[in-house]
Amino acid sequence: MKIICSQSELRNNLSLVSRAVPSRPTHPILANVLLMADSEKNTVTLTGFDLSLGMRTSFAAQVEEEGCITIPAKLFNDIVSRLPEGEIIVSFDGDDTDDNPLVAIESMYGKFQLRGVSASEFPDLPAVEKEEALMLPVTALSEGLKGSLFAASNDEAKQILTGIHLTRNLDTLEFAATDGHRLAVVKTTDDKEVSEDGEEETTHDDISVSEEQNFTMTIPARALREVEKILTMAKEEDNVALYVDDGQVVFELGEQNLTSRKLDGAYPNYNQLIPTSFDRTMVVERKRIIESLERVSVLLDQKNNMVKFSLDSQKGQLFLSVEANELGNAKESILAEITGDDFEIGFNIRYLMDGLKALSSNEITFHFNGAIQPVIVTPLSGLQMTYLIMPVKL
Amino acid sequence: MKIICSQSELRNNLSLVSRAVPSRPTHPILANVLLMADSEKNTVTLTGFDLSLGMRTSFAAQVEEEGCITIPAKLFNDIVSRLPEGEIIVSFDGDDTDDNPLVAIESMYGKFQLRGVSASEFPDLPAVEKEEALMLPVTALSEGLKGSLFAASNDEAKQILTGIHLTRNLDTLEFAATDGHRLAVVKTTDDKEVSEDGEEETTHDDISVSEEQNFTMTIPARALREVEKILTMAKEEDNVALYVDDGQVVFELGEQNLTSRKLDGAYPNYNQLIPTSFDRTMVVERKRIIESLERVSVLLDQKNNMVKFSLDSQKGQLFLSVEANELGNAKESILAEITGDDFEIGFNIRYLMDGLKALSSNEITFHFNGAIQPVIVTPLSGLQMTYLIMPVKL
Repeated sequence: MKIICSQSELRNNLSLVSRAVPSRPTHPILANVLLMADSEKNTVTLTGFDLSLGMRTSFAAQVEEEGCITIPAKLFNDIVSRLPEGEIIVSFDGDDTDDNPLVAIESMYGKFQLRGVSASEFPDLPAVEKEEALMLPVTALSEGLKGSLFAASNDEAKQILTGIHLTRNLDTLEFAATDGHRLAVVKTTDDKEVSEDGEEETTHDDISVSEEQNFTMTIPARALREVEKILTMAKEEDNVALYVDDGQVVFELGEQNLTSRKLDGAYPNYNQLIPTSFDRTMVVERKRIIESLERVSVLLDQKNNMVKFSLDSQKGQLFLSVEANELGNAKESILAEITGDDFEIGFNIRYLMDGLKALSSNEITFHFNGAIQPVIVTPLSGLQMTYLIMPVKL
Repeated sequence: MKIICSQSELRNNLSLVSRAVPSRPTHPILANVLLMADSEKNTVTLTGFDLSLGMRTSFAAQVEEEGCITIPAKLFNDIVSRLPEGEIIVSFDGDDTDDNPLVAIESMYGKFQLRGVSASEFPDLPAVEKEEALMLPVTALSEGLKGSLFAASNDEAKQILTGIHLTRNLDTLEFAATDGHRLAVVKTTDDKEVSEDGEEETTHDDISVSEEQNFTMTIPARALREVEKILTMAKEEDNVALYVDDGQVVFELGEQNLTSRKLDGAYPNYNQLIPTSFDRTMVVERKRIIESLERVSVLLDQKNNMVKFSLDSQKGQLFLSVEANELGNAKESILAEITGDDFEIGFNIRYLMDGLKALSSNEITFHFNGAIQPVIVTPLSGLQMTYLIMPVKL
């Protein structure tokens, strides 16, 4: 095998697929990246795969002799990222059946040789029927992920809760995540805009949506965090193709391709948890409340992480306070539009901040019932996001 | 006590003295910062002290009621750095003899109260006779520190080797550091410049230097790293006042003041370790060799950290190579002006890189004798720095 390619192309693509390479592989071969060189198309395809998440990407290269090999991903990445800009030659002698050929990586300054492993040892990415792609607009997908990923559980034991629940219903895509303490739901409606007289207008009717394309499924948050990163490289008007079968999903954007298993099991029926009527509401400036929470959180520690909200509707102020017996205390006030009776309520400050940071609007509304009933936070305008947080007993 | 000051002044000065506050204090009071408010001068003085290193700084403030108190440094710092810009009020009721008053920190948004400790609990900074100051130019001091600090030992058990040895001989200030594996020596001569005909000219004769001001002493590298940071805030033409007595030194720059104990014991007679004649020399571009070393170091690990130099005087090239049996190997070449016979020599790559990074000139000279004799690296021009490194057996 012998390819000649640009250092920057190789570096960018390698760093992308390396994200699917596990740092502690269950099998040594998974620490490697698969490199396939196709002399007919003059392309190089790189694959990283941890048996759950797979990332594959292709780029143009001069393929002088085709072939396949796997190379230790971390070393390969570390070397290529430090090589000078310009042409890089990657090659090995012998054929693809050799078990451990030395793969040469040559730049204008010298030559590295890395011990490779035959491509035949590398597991195949699961095949997914690619008949019907669902086209998801980049903006909808990234808004939905930003508003939900933070609320998924990081505890592998919680299984289905480590995923994002996706529901497509005609032109609406709903993202939901919960770890049991809080719930984030984002609805994105993309192909239509509401005109001034209240009627919906179709703005992009090139993407047709039918009931057959409806789905619900749960995808590991880990895979979607990588999708989120890929999206940062996309243009706003791009679409991501989504292929789904029983066990797997594939996201495709240009030459970039991410395969993930779906999570099995029933996702909680979260819609029934969201209250629909409220005794009190409060509108505040999001940035101001985040800054206040960041300051008073200085006094918190692992034992004590509660912030108290005191709503004063007459003064039109929210008082935030933290008590840390041994260290001291803190109290700040923020202008707020309050409806309903004054009351006090406590929150886990971290859970509260996570949600406030994920909201995108400048002004947000808190919807309260009693001091021990779920609280809903929504943006005053823009994205349709609902953040549900359970209060902490005062 | 009650002071009104600007958030930015308080933040900057607090973050400076906090650097002397130990993260794991041997006594609880040392985790606090001492705040002294002087109503006559309208200044606030902050002090951090870990019994070895002390930092003190003063700034202008409106002192409504004078007094002294100590406040937990980390909390105080974390809070003040998050407060909005503008006026901050720091106050406590009662007098300085109260054991644990609540200290209020007020901004336009609210009020923090921190449990303070009476200033009488805080240890005094050691007194140093401040009769005769030695004035050290900022540029000389920072060049000397940059070229030596990296080579001091981080192993507290090595005592005197955790310091920088400073020698002042008339207008020459010499900085030396060694951890037993390598030695860095920097000579700075500041008040004189060599004119074109080779004679020394006095450019700043306002600073008179006499033999009585000569000294040798060893100062903990930890304290000098803080001096180095203070210097980054100084102007090039500033001078640092240095006061020395038997046990302590004080560095003074404007309102900033750093006190450190000196290290006891005899510093190794390092000058006798530096060879004066050599069999071979090699001139290379510093940036190029650092980049090559960074690339080939990818293949190294804790067991194997050797890079091999092969000098080829006919080709005018230095070949750098690394062998990592299981992983592979690397070889790069660099243009070099070589005098003397070809030969091979091995280095610990980390020790080599540390020295090359501390040198400031673009071209550097390696001076070799045999493959197991000390090697000297010097800049081709500029600062007088000598880096001695012991080779590793091939």
